Amino acid sequence: MKAFGVGLIGFGTVGAGVADALIRNGELLASRLGSRVVLRGIADLDLETDRGVKVDRALLTRDAEALVRNPDIRIIVELVGGTGVARKFVLAAIEAGKTVVSANKALLAEHGAEIFGAARARGVDVYFGASVGGGIPIVRSLRDGLIGNRIESVHGILNGTCNYILHRMETEGLPFAAALQAAQAEGFAEADPSLDIDGVDTAHKAALLARLAYGLDVRLADLCIEGIRGLALDDIADVKALGYRIKLLAVVKREGDAVEVRVHPALVPEKHVLASVSGVFNAVMVRGDLVGDTLYYGRGAGRLPTASTVVADIADAVRSLASGTPRGWPIDPAGADLPRLLPIGEVVSRHY
Amino acid sequence: MKAFGVGLIGFGTVGAGVADALIRNGELLASRLGSRVVLRGIADLDLETDRGVKVDRALLTRDAEALVRNPDIRIIVELVGGTGVARKFVLAAIEAGKTVVSANKALLAEHGAEIFGAARARGVDVYFGASVGGGIPIVRSLRDGLIGNRIESVHGILNGTCNYILHRMETEGLPFAAALQAAQAEGFAEADPSLDIDGVDTAHKAALLARLAYGLDVRLADLCIEGIRGLALDDIADVKALGYRIKLLAVVKREGDAVEVRVHPALVPEKHVLASVSGVFNAVMVRGDLVGDTLYYGRGAGRLPTASTVVADIADAVRSLASGTPRGWPIDPAGADLPRLLPIGEVVSRHY
Repeated sequence: MKAFGVGLIGFGTVGAGVADALIRNGELLASRLGSRVVLRGIADLDLETDRGVKVDRALLTRDAEALVRNPDIRIIVELVGGTGVARKFVLAAIEAGKTVVSANKALLAEHGAEIFGAARARGVDVYFGASVGGGIPIVRSLRDGLIGNRIESVHGILNGTCNYILHRMETEGLPFAAALQAAQAEGFAEADPSLDIDGVDTAHKAALLARLAYGLDVRLADLCIEGIRGLALDDIADVKALGYRIKLLAVVKREGDAVEVRVHPALVPEKHVLASVSGVFNAVMVRGDLVGDTLYYGRGAGRLPTASTVVADIADAVRSLASGTPRGWPIDPAGADLPRLLPIGEVVSRHY
Repeated sequence: MKAFGVGLIGFGTVGAGVADALIRNGELLASRLGSRVVLRGIADLDLETDRGVKVDRALLTRDAEALVRNPDIRIIVELVGGTGVARKFVLAAIEAGKTVVSANKALLAEHGAEIFGAARARGVDVYFGASVGGGIPIVRSLRDGLIGNRIESVHGILNGTCNYILHRMETEGLPFAAALQAAQAEGFAEADPSLDIDGVDTAHKAALLARLAYGLDVRLADLCIEGIRGLALDDIADVKALGYRIKLLAVVKREGDAVEVRVHPALVPEKHVLASVSGVFNAVMVRGDLVGDTLYYGRGAGRLPTASTVVADIADAVRSLASGTPRGWPIDPAGADLPRLLPIGEVVSRHY
């Protein structure tokens, strides 16, 4: 059986989850894949913290670039997060001809044109399944499962922190500030929660969904983004009385030759399946011209759910490497059915 | 751009849908795939009926075996249905070294060992995404999206006819016989509805899900199968009062080193997302050891939804052929994490 070396950059929550998953289910994965995935190195600046997973200490290094240079490593998994060193490592890996797997939505949304362009030029693939929807196989469903469809719209609930806050506001009548504090106390919100509650995290995911569905390179500055910070308890109670719930939605929607991409709190009828999505769960509804409505639901974050999707991306990478044929992924927007992004001023939607 | 020839055997509802989809979205598909899918022949005994799609009449033939022999056809799409000539065509296509795409759950559930064995021996792939869940990308989600997971359970609502009948019984108080007649009048049930209402269709799908999740070769005779024919209106009203709905479920569930596979009407709490699945919609909930619960929802039947998945399978086939590497699909159960099927006598479940 062929073996393919993997190097992990970033040994935090998700990195440790990926190592755990590869150790725990490595034999099963090999039997399904027909190739062996071998963890050949893990880079992190902090090698002391207990990550809750037993790995050979000889695999650990503080030198991420050593993994990129290692000829026995064919796949670099970037789980550092952020757009600083992560960008540098990803570009170096591409330059070195490695396949890249990343769960970094901020990096790929903000520097997608640069990174995907470099990958295309070098003939390597960049997989980013775990950057949208955590454990939900939504990226690959759009890419492969619905490949024959012209995508009409994508509606997603993609931020667990906002879900949690809205749930506490709705069910317990907590005001926004108290619900946010509760989320922070439970570990569901960061000390600086602005990326989540102001909709930026959801907008990164919306941008990636627009790239997947339409090949669009979307800049956050070009989007309507509204978070949940301004929501009053009264708003929630009023719409509840009308039979609706408020959810922070990512919307990507084709209208003729243009595509709207927006993020804002939206009214969802309480009988709609999206209304019941709460806490760490995410859901994405995709409408295709052939298939009609489809829905994908699962844990949008967390150590092992995210690792589940990272491992699936590693498996895709291994299959392409084993066949000696890069998948040419993601597609070059120039060749696709490419609509334009609808300018902010032209976006019209029903608001409460 | 490379081109790959496809031959359709069966020009009924789904066959015409596939031809329609390939014509309508062929350019888009090629831009996403990097290869062109070319329809090189369509075989059916009835070439006179208007199928609602414009195809070059030169493509039509009554001789399915001519498509199998045609060296310009690399992929045979079997949409005949049933286990008679369909089996013959599929085995002939495999013998001729063609990749096979089939939506035929009865054939693959009842003759899976023979067909998949022949494909492995010949080194060709057999794709069957549309045989479970219609337009829902559930087969590929189990195969690829959750490849790193040990599957704990799969629960599916997979038969639209039963869904429709149960919905009419529940919402309008129609007795079973009247609801069945209504379903027949609406075209949602066959003149002989027994495959649907006695749970056989759902059992075929359950058997395929067990093969996907565990590599098990399940025979229908070894399963507990109970349909909805025996349901009285009182049953439905009683459980409704208790906060439940009755759904015909396919259950595939690992217990230690054994797997239960069963089909029967089951109580679903009305707040559970599966409770809201009705009509032509299907849904499948999969629990994996890494990802936890995930759910997939969409149209389980119909011309274009089913074509959506057939086209996705054709795309997989093209990608494998373009790389010159068969995917080795489905996996050989002997190499997998192979539990045994729990004998009927040992299956214990909570019943109403």
